[in-house]
Amino acid sequence: MQYQAPVDDMMFLIKDVFDLENRLKGIADFSEFDAELYNAILEEAGKFATGILQPINRSGDEEGCQFDDGVVTTPKGFKEAYQAYVEGGWQSLTASAQYGGQGLPKSLHVLVEEMFYSANSSFCLYGSLTAGAYHLLQAHADDVIKDQYLAKLISGEWSGSMCLTEAHAGSDLGILKTKAEPQEDGTYKLSGSKIFITGGEHDMTDNIIHLVLARLPDAPAGPKGISLFLVPKFMVNDDGSLGERNGIRCGSIEHKMGIKASSTCVINMDDATGFIIGGPHQGLRCMFTMMNLERLSIGLQGVGLGEMSYQQAFDYANDRLQGRAEGVEGTAPIIRHGDVQRMLKTMQAYTQAGRALAVWLGAWLDEAFHSEDEAVVSKAQNMAALLTPVAKAFFTDIGYEVCTIGQQVFGGHGYVREWGMEQHVRDARIAQIYEGTNGIQALDLIGRKIVSNKGAFLSELLTDMRDDMQSFSDTSHKVILASQLEELESLSIKIVEHFSADQDKQQYIACDYLHYMALSLYAYLWLKMAETGKDGKKESMQFFFNRLLPRAYGLKKSIENELGL
Amino acid sequence: MQYQAPVDDMMFLIKDVFDLENRLKGIADFSEFDAELYNAILEEAGKFATGILQPINRSGDEEGCQFDDGVVTTPKGFKEAYQAYVEGGWQSLTASAQYGGQGLPKSLHVLVEEMFYSANSSFCLYGSLTAGAYHLLQAHADDVIKDQYLAKLISGEWSGSMCLTEAHAGSDLGILKTKAEPQEDGTYKLSGSKIFITGGEHDMTDNIIHLVLARLPDAPAGPKGISLFLVPKFMVNDDGSLGERNGIRCGSIEHKMGIKASSTCVINMDDATGFIIGGPHQGLRCMFTMMNLERLSIGLQGVGLGEMSYQQAFDYANDRLQGRAEGVEGTAPIIRHGDVQRMLKTMQAYTQAGRALAVWLGAWLDEAFHSEDEAVVSKAQNMAALLTPVAKAFFTDIGYEVCTIGQQVFGGHGYVREWGMEQHVRDARIAQIYEGTNGIQALDLIGRKIVSNKGAFLSELLTDMRDDMQSFSDTSHKVILASQLEELESLSIKIVEHFSADQDKQQYIACDYLHYMALSLYAYLWLKMAETGKDGKKESMQFFFNRLLPRAYGLKKSIENELGL
Repeated sequence: MQYQAPVDDMMFLIKDVFDLENRLKGIADFSEFDAELYNAILEEAGKFATGILQPINRSGDEEGCQFDDGVVTTPKGFKEAYQAYVEGGWQSLTASAQYGGQGLPKSLHVLVEEMFYSANSSFCLYGSLTAGAYHLLQAHADDVIKDQYLAKLISGEWSGSMCLTEAHAGSDLGILKTKAEPQEDGTYKLSGSKIFITGGEHDMTDNIIHLVLARLPDAPAGPKGISLFLVPKFMVNDDGSLGERNGIRCGSIEHKMGIKASSTCVINMDDATGFIIGGPHQGLRCMFTMMNLERLSIGLQGVGLGEMSYQQAFDYANDRLQGRAEGVEGTAPIIRHGDVQRMLKTMQAYTQAGRALAVWLGAWLDEAFHSEDEAVVSKAQNMAALLTPVAKAFFTDIGYEVCTIGQQVFGGHGYVREWGMEQHVRDARIAQIYEGTNGIQALDLIGRKIVSNKGAFLSELLTDMRDDMQSFSDTSHKVILASQLEELESLSIKIVEHFSADQDKQQYIACDYLHYMALSLYAYLWLKMAETGKDGKKESMQFFFNRLLPRAYGLKKSIENELGL
Repeated sequence: MQYQAPVDDMMFLIKDVFDLENRLKGIADFSEFDAELYNAILEEAGKFATGILQPINRSGDEEGCQFDDGVVTTPKGFKEAYQAYVEGGWQSLTASAQYGGQGLPKSLHVLVEEMFYSANSSFCLYGSLTAGAYHLLQAHADDVIKDQYLAKLISGEWSGSMCLTEAHAGSDLGILKTKAEPQEDGTYKLSGSKIFITGGEHDMTDNIIHLVLARLPDAPAGPKGISLFLVPKFMVNDDGSLGERNGIRCGSIEHKMGIKASSTCVINMDDATGFIIGGPHQGLRCMFTMMNLERLSIGLQGVGLGEMSYQQAFDYANDRLQGRAEGVEGTAPIIRHGDVQRMLKTMQAYTQAGRALAVWLGAWLDEAFHSEDEAVVSKAQNMAALLTPVAKAFFTDIGYEVCTIGQQVFGGHGYVREWGMEQHVRDARIAQIYEGTNGIQALDLIGRKIVSNKGAFLSELLTDMRDDMQSFSDTSHKVILASQLEELESLSIKIVEHFSADQDKQQYIACDYLHYMALSLYAYLWLKMAETGKDGKKESMQFFFNRLLPRAYGLKKSIENELGL
């Protein structure tokens, strides 16, 4: 089944729901862009997803990456697709014009990312890591490094990798052991071993630029003693040509449940030459610059795979004949059965709300990075900080659930490999784990984004939402939403007031709290979408309010029970 | 990590919670059994699971079944393990003594099944289908067939397969097309093609006895025109020796998400000789005899894999050092983190309650099949009918969730194949689909087990539970449970009163209703377990009431919204 890029629904968000053109108009960097351009880009992205990426998705899964003596070969067609990706300018969409990027807004890019993840999640990861690398360098590297590396990363001629995890240090990066010895020429020699390095080695680019966390000899223990280094696979000469092979090598690749066409590498460094980025012991701080972007990107993997699974399940449910239904002669398509309807509506209601949240968050990222108004930047930074862990964790938890439902719609045909539905589940599963497990996201939300600012970020967000809701005309749902938001606020205040110092209690409720907040936000987004009067949105909104929002009641009760409220 | 058979928790259920020895004492067939025997069998089963089945679980997944020109080869070690399984008497545990079975109670057997599914789900399926076949033949075949086939199926010398699904007929068996032509000698010639036939071909037994649904030439359309046939792979001579190869052959095997060591076959019949079982057009009725047993068995796959995943996650969480915790010098084991605790407790609370429900249901099956008291039989049949879809669907939905959580505890190490955590997820996933999808289970529950008897079965069950609860001493939890059961009852009555004729509404809420009921039953079982005073049970009960039972509130609200209540 061919992927159908949901350009209409995306343009509906851009124009009718968020009116991005007007919202971003005041920002100089975006002043020349309009909705027509956004539409054209989405159309092209859809074609690229359907024509280039989707055709090698299942074969990529079947074939996987191959490892032989340090060399990683990507599955058939990946090199060519990557070439087309670079030539189409897809890597440079949001990158700074100064280094050859197109400077387009993140609120548009999230939609392109969603499409590409729908069509081929493994493929997307290579470019996503590259984007993380150049955003990081742009923010923290000195001009020499920028001049040498940025243009080639932005174009996609070279790719990037993020080398954080070690065998004994995953969620807890503070205990990592990779060493960086300063050299007389100002460079460093790195030694150590990293695992789970996505795109750490492959055959699609001439060079790979690794961003590596390591410790200097004098580093204090824990997270404050971590520094960041750029370690190229091949050294780069002053004229930009490639020099000698650096001492950073792929030792093996992992055999995984899914995303099999994405290479997941053990990366060994043996006196590899590196360049410090952002100064000594500033590694984690620098890393966090790009972490928000990467986390949102991984969230979109959840939305994208959910959309893909939904499209296939919807088609299958229309084609597959089983059982009787009123008004149908003979055997009915299974979409006529209530339980199948429930499954499809659940998939759709979650996926479309996720897409909306992604654009909403994307717009705040655009303001945070590009607005010249300090007040706008500051608020947007807060909103992006608050919403990023919600997006990453909820999109991916729900993405996995949605893909599982899509597989269920296919019955036994969903369990065999042939139809590809089980691949979506396997591919979606990783998104709950990498780029910070969803448990870590939940702790980030409750600890850093709620408790540490005493709920100020949430309060800012709620003020915005309530202002917006004033114009809503659907009184009955508005009342439900208003009370939902009040309960969210009041529960959050109680957490801040009584459990700010109780890390244990925070941990115990973190995941439930994140889901509770996300469902509340989805309710707002659904009502906002329904208010436009667009066909079908009111029904989906009602379905969400009736059938999915109630999950929030259970979560609230669970949190209250844990906290003794 | 080696599987640890949870014999203690199992004996706790047998003795302290359900007092099976006394409950079954009055049944002649079980009069010679006692708890000591049950304990000895569980100990042996545990050794078999750990020593024989678990060691070939991951290799079986890696290697899978191989197909070559009609011949299916099981993975290395499976033939030998099957031989040990037969020699150990594991196939004949609950079968009738008349044909060489050991006649042990189902309430014990469910625990053995759980262990075997924990250790190697693929392996278990072969024997589970054989058991389904001999229970069916025992109930519906004539003496000639019984004498010829039962002893060899019960011993496991031959295996069984259930041939129901066709490419266009899955949940809707009424439209199946396989034809059976009556012959002058009283046999039939079958032609047609079946798919998704578990154990339909393999190399572990000399003969495979297929039970095939097909249509006679004069059959009425729909489910009432289906007949059941015994179709052996090799014809059986009068002296019991094997005769000529029958025209039933494996055309290919499926490539699946999981249970890769279980052969899932396309079975083609070309004038295959078959023997009718149970008379013309009685096929579905006969099939349903064994369906309850098969469904419970598949439910146990969910419980078993959940237990396995829990054991590994628990061990890993004790070993894996990440982050700080109060009172721990240096890096703490992740089990000290609240979010990990929540995950482990969720896994445990669900799995142990599932095990309890399995024994509870097993005891009713024992009474239904073996009691000589008609009133006992009738009530037990009702309870088994009511609880079977709940067990099948909830055990497996939760089994998948629990395995997913277990994988999450491992972080990235859970996503790579090495540790085996992702195999549990893939193996568990099928259990929600086969033996009647969980959607079908939910429709069975609400349609046939609630609405069609106007809630009488549920009312009988609730009366039992309330009687039992009178002796409970934990007043505060008893109040919560009592109100939960009242709400379940009142919602069920409303469904019966207002939606008996509304199939569509029933479908829309069926899955939510099943989960809602299951959570209510788990609450009862947890309080019942806690009442024994056994170590740790009270804490788990509290966790269940605080953190998991609240899901039921959300489900209730969702159902009420859908029904406009």
